[in-house]
Amino acid sequence: MRKTQVNVDRLWATLMTHAEIGKLESGGICRETLTDVDKQGRDLFVQWCRDESLDVGIDEMGTIYATRPGTNSSLDPIAIGSHLDTQPTGGKFDGILGVLGGLEVIRTLNRAGIQTRRPITLINWTNEEGSRFQPSMVSSGVYAGVLTMADVAEIADADGIGFFEALEKIGYTGNEPVGARKFHSYLELHIEQGPVLEDEDTMIGVVTGAQAMSWNRFTVRGRESHAGTTPMSSRLDAMASANRLIARSFDLGNGIDDGRATVGVVRTEPASHNTIPHTVHFTLDMRHPDDVELARMIADLEVAVEEEHALGFEVSREEFGTAPAVRFDETCVDAIRDAAVEMGYSHRDIVSGAGHDAVYVSRVCPTAMVFTPCAGGISHNPIESITPEQAKAGVDVLLGATLRMADK
Amino acid sequence: MRKTQVNVDRLWATLMTHAEIGKLESGGICRETLTDVDKQGRDLFVQWCRDESLDVGIDEMGTIYATRPGTNSSLDPIAIGSHLDTQPTGGKFDGILGVLGGLEVIRTLNRAGIQTRRPITLINWTNEEGSRFQPSMVSSGVYAGVLTMADVAEIADADGIGFFEALEKIGYTGNEPVGARKFHSYLELHIEQGPVLEDEDTMIGVVTGAQAMSWNRFTVRGRESHAGTTPMSSRLDAMASANRLIARSFDLGNGIDDGRATVGVVRTEPASHNTIPHTVHFTLDMRHPDDVELARMIADLEVAVEEEHALGFEVSREEFGTAPAVRFDETCVDAIRDAAVEMGYSHRDIVSGAGHDAVYVSRVCPTAMVFTPCAGGISHNPIESITPEQAKAGVDVLLGATLRMADK
Repeated sequence: MRKTQVNVDRLWATLMTHAEIGKLESGGICRETLTDVDKQGRDLFVQWCRDESLDVGIDEMGTIYATRPGTNSSLDPIAIGSHLDTQPTGGKFDGILGVLGGLEVIRTLNRAGIQTRRPITLINWTNEEGSRFQPSMVSSGVYAGVLTMADVAEIADADGIGFFEALEKIGYTGNEPVGARKFHSYLELHIEQGPVLEDEDTMIGVVTGAQAMSWNRFTVRGRESHAGTTPMSSRLDAMASANRLIARSFDLGNGIDDGRATVGVVRTEPASHNTIPHTVHFTLDMRHPDDVELARMIADLEVAVEEEHALGFEVSREEFGTAPAVRFDETCVDAIRDAAVEMGYSHRDIVSGAGHDAVYVSRVCPTAMVFTPCAGGISHNPIESITPEQAKAGVDVLLGATLRMADK
Repeated sequence: MRKTQVNVDRLWATLMTHAEIGKLESGGICRETLTDVDKQGRDLFVQWCRDESLDVGIDEMGTIYATRPGTNSSLDPIAIGSHLDTQPTGGKFDGILGVLGGLEVIRTLNRAGIQTRRPITLINWTNEEGSRFQPSMVSSGVYAGVLTMADVAEIADADGIGFFEALEKIGYTGNEPVGARKFHSYLELHIEQGPVLEDEDTMIGVVTGAQAMSWNRFTVRGRESHAGTTPMSSRLDAMASANRLIARSFDLGNGIDDGRATVGVVRTEPASHNTIPHTVHFTLDMRHPDDVELARMIADLEVAVEEEHALGFEVSREEFGTAPAVRFDETCVDAIRDAAVEMGYSHRDIVSGAGHDAVYVSRVCPTAMVFTPCAGGISHNPIESITPEQAKAGVDVLLGATLRMADK
């Protein structure tokens, strides 16, 4: 077992202290991005960084970078971090564990007097959640060149307040151009937000990449008619057609390892209990860790759509969101896996099913992630929960991986 | 071929003249019950009845009874009729054909100088449609004792105007207690509102009864989780469960002759495209001409519900509407079938899939119905359409059946 481990009591106390900011009665946090509560959370974080003698910089998206020097500070730093903003009814760990866990890594190094070859930069990305300002992961998106500052200038919240206006209001408009800082690599610790680690009683997820994803809106058109007077054989029932397509979608998701199919929204028209619907709208979220397999699932679905066309239905599919599979950097992934092995934590490779800042950052910088279990896989919910031991294990592995990468 | 036939030109002209009242640009009619337009339609009808020397009475529900004497006026009359009110975007024939076709029967008898043993009473039932004031078929409901006057006193339209207030306003509050008039039998001519007669190129439907019906609201509860992070095997996806139940419902509808299954409304919660729904609500309208078969369909469905329970889903079924199968009176049915045969019209027995005043009246009086085809089976729509020949055939059969019953 490695001798340098993080301090679980300090880590947990830090998490709980910070969780007071925006605390909900339900036990969770409401700390949407660029609100006064977000400002309080940032202020406390910045204070804690300064207490550790970190050099704090802020970029034009409000992302905070706090750097601990290396023995060779001309080298690109190792970046670690995540986000401190939450959903309107969020939990205490989603994102936050990655930032405050990163702080615990710094504190541990400082207390133990450990020097690293490369600097270490702790990051709090602005607006990962995307609940107040869409889209999500907006600052890492600009950092990675997926979005531009001009795109962000168009973004406003439900009250019409612009992103940059809100950023200015809380005093976190920095002067660093986004993306000006280059990193040797980026490591992000996050709760899994799924049930796999808990179900398998595994402490550490070594995240090797992110799923490919396809978001689709289907519209099925048949013929409206009377539920009583129209024999089954005379119907062009849009719901019957949609139900077959939905069944096929689930079959495709179930039929392949690591496939996912989710029908989150279904809506009928005219939505009368005794009228056969002329139209059904539904969404289909399909995912797979492999682009080729996802494409095959969608091709199979197109066969099902053709079958409905042959029966007389009009079916349209609009793909309104898509993301290719992401493979994280092998050196980073190995550093995380090796750290877990060294610390004696049970671990498994896992593919992220959720979006993360790391997914964007991986486009411009070697990246990997560490997952810890969370109770019932539940996230984006005040009851989101992890144990101090799970938090410690995740931060221990982050520490070990950071040390490995910092000396490369 | 019977020598006494109705006059198609007069019949069609009468239908078209009356269709001017509440005429829509789309070609249909907006003549919701107890509106000023309804009053105009009633006034013209009453005028036409008086022109035929009929004795007009009105009951406390505003239902109009116009009677032609028989040779023995102490006998209970034969009643014929339907309704003159329409849906807000209704057609020119739904209900109206039964009333104005009945008028054409009277006119034909008057012109031909034919006397009948029993009197004949032509009826316009108030508020069959139920669009402005729910429920539908309200005056025949009170006539048959299914509803009470006290029930009706509770009914108001969307603007808060009470049923009786609206009736008073158009001057059609009669002084006859509802149900005071007894009839020997009741015959109602109506468009089919379904595709069967047209599809089979058949002129006359001899309606032997009405389907048994069961209206159900299902609520399926599973577990909300993340569309990306939750493996298929870890899900309790309420939509997957609902998809199986809906498929089973359609299988049951398709699996038996004359079965019907309609899922008109589907709604997911939380209705986010990347969240597995925790809850799905859907409606299921199931019908069959035979109570026993309908009960068997529902019992089969309960087996499917139990299967979902076994998988961990919570499924509740609320039956919010039900109607037993109705078998019309054999003598009345025979009179209609015999009249069709005598006139040489193609005909078939058929079970009504829609609600009609006749269904309520059949509870207190021997009843049957005549159906004529309508284009595409389409009704409750301005494009509702029949040909003059189809109208004539229906009224010819109504005439023949009326003469048969009037001499019994």
